[in-house]
Amino acid sequence: MSVSDVGERRLIEYIWETLERDPNELLGAGLDDAVAKELAEGFVLVAHTDMWVEHTDLLPGMSWRLAGRKAVVANISDLAAKGAKPLGLLFSVGLPPEFPLESLRELVEGLSEGASEYGTHVLGGDLGESREVILAGSIFGVAHRERLMPRSGAQPGDLVAVTGLLGLTAVGFKILLEEYEAPGSVKAKAVESVYRPVARLKEGLALAGCGAVTASMDISDGLAVSLNQMAEASGVSITLEKLPIAEEARFFAERHRLDLEELTLYEGGEEYELLVAVRPGMWSEAVKAVKNVGGSLYKIGVVCEGSGVYKADGSKVEAKGWEHLRRTVG
Amino acid sequence: MSVSDVGERRLIEYIWETLERDPNELLGAGLDDAVAKELAEGFVLVAHTDMWVEHTDLLPGMSWRLAGRKAVVANISDLAAKGAKPLGLLFSVGLPPEFPLESLRELVEGLSEGASEYGTHVLGGDLGESREVILAGSIFGVAHRERLMPRSGAQPGDLVAVTGLLGLTAVGFKILLEEYEAPGSVKAKAVESVYRPVARLKEGLALAGCGAVTASMDISDGLAVSLNQMAEASGVSITLEKLPIAEEARFFAERHRLDLEELTLYEGGEEYELLVAVRPGMWSEAVKAVKNVGGSLYKIGVVCEGSGVYKADGSKVEAKGWEHLRRTVG
Repeated sequence: MSVSDVGERRLIEYIWETLERDPNELLGAGLDDAVAKELAEGFVLVAHTDMWVEHTDLLPGMSWRLAGRKAVVANISDLAAKGAKPLGLLFSVGLPPEFPLESLRELVEGLSEGASEYGTHVLGGDLGESREVILAGSIFGVAHRERLMPRSGAQPGDLVAVTGLLGLTAVGFKILLEEYEAPGSVKAKAVESVYRPVARLKEGLALAGCGAVTASMDISDGLAVSLNQMAEASGVSITLEKLPIAEEARFFAERHRLDLEELTLYEGGEEYELLVAVRPGMWSEAVKAVKNVGGSLYKIGVVCEGSGVYKADGSKVEAKGWEHLRRTVG
Repeated sequence: MSVSDVGERRLIEYIWETLERDPNELLGAGLDDAVAKELAEGFVLVAHTDMWVEHTDLLPGMSWRLAGRKAVVANISDLAAKGAKPLGLLFSVGLPPEFPLESLRELVEGLSEGASEYGTHVLGGDLGESREVILAGSIFGVAHRERLMPRSGAQPGDLVAVTGLLGLTAVGFKILLEEYEAPGSVKAKAVESVYRPVARLKEGLALAGCGAVTASMDISDGLAVSLNQMAEASGVSITLEKLPIAEEARFFAERHRLDLEELTLYEGGEEYELLVAVRPGMWSEAVKAVKNVGGSLYKIGVVCEGSGVYKADGSKVEAKGWEHLRRTVG
């Protein structure tokens, strides 16, 4: 049996059956966006690694500069979701021997640009030879122990929210990978969302600071998958109400007669919005905290007892979407 | 021009011409084994990343379990060289779709075994698809600010030392990669040195603790390269006296009429001994500190004014050895 008979998500469970867990890791190693270790006096170190691989992650038309920047953003996003301020990044970079020196310069400019956008730096790294370009980033930062936002704290009654309009990356993938057509302005916005994603670091830090959040993660693995992961980690169910969807995605879905909600739930990914559960009595504080840093918070549903994720009409939202190392979308 | 026209060491300089440096990084980003950031009250966070790539790093006959363990050891070693106690590791793992599930289990067992040997854990990671097996590790730990051991602190008059007998990995590579013959016991010892290397964590922590060390690094890039890097980073020269060489390497060199010193200086690598400069007045403290944790410290030379590295006979030791992304050994 090979790893592609199993798929990324079950493989991670398989790995954790073998790997010895650190009893002092604070986020439940392997079940959260990042790991955390106590440092001293109420401070924790939060760390994460995220790998960018050429043959699965280089989108058509994407420059090396954008690739480098995006590899940084993917790492920033997971720290943002935990409410941790980055101290810096490291990158292990694998390059094929024939990789042009000029492309390396662009790639490094992208790494530098990404880090700089979030007030941090690439501090160092490793360089080696590989059969395709590999950008294995790791990031570490510091958070207040009592403000660390796990995936697993959602409580029945909490409001579920996201930090931005959804659906654009799903449209971007349709255009870039499936040759769907779209008018210039729609195409530009959708392609930009996958070429130049934005991590919600300010929002994550603001949400951690206001103390209103019980659970948090990013939705980079897809909205349906992420909702299910939060529900499962927290031992609750989530009932969706209305998804805040970008105007361009709405237009695109209508034009191509696609189900807008299905598109947004199942065909996105690499969407770096935060998904949070908010104490119902502190909703306005959470909204205000995010607004103060120039962001937005959109309510998408509520946390209930039970398990699983459901649409407003009661139908189930399956934990499916794009998955590494899986032959067919499950 | 492609990256293999330049080679790993010059590429790293090239990268640092583009990458924005963090002025608050404490080890001179990119010029040391690891990076360090101040945490609070005299403590620093030390971090490092080291990537293992199948087609350059999987030696003939090496199991996935040994590969996983070695990927951990490579990361531990750089933290050891800085005198930092590991808090944990992360691994971004890339696998080809056809990679057997059973091999993944072995690989993960190796990661777990490696971390456990050094009293730490693999805390989490990322999993993706790649064209060959990639194990991009990162490690982070804590050190006392004033005990952090940089590459760059060696002073004229300091004694230069290593933490173990040298030469075995060079012999191991000759046997595994160039089909040299050796008697069973020599072969076993040499092959073991590359299959199952040991990081000098206890020794690194003991040396940092005793305050006798002015400069430290591991010699995993090869002895000649590492000596030159320490001399250059410290703005000094190093004059070698006698290298402590393993009996098996001596036997092997005689048998094959190879120059033992050349073999040890230029053909090793992935040798995880620490190379340190020790204040001359504190030599016995350093020896005692290492002995107390069950290790050894061998004097190999002295630090002098000037630049470069020299043998006892005055001839120059060039900064050459095996290098990633380089067509010919330079």
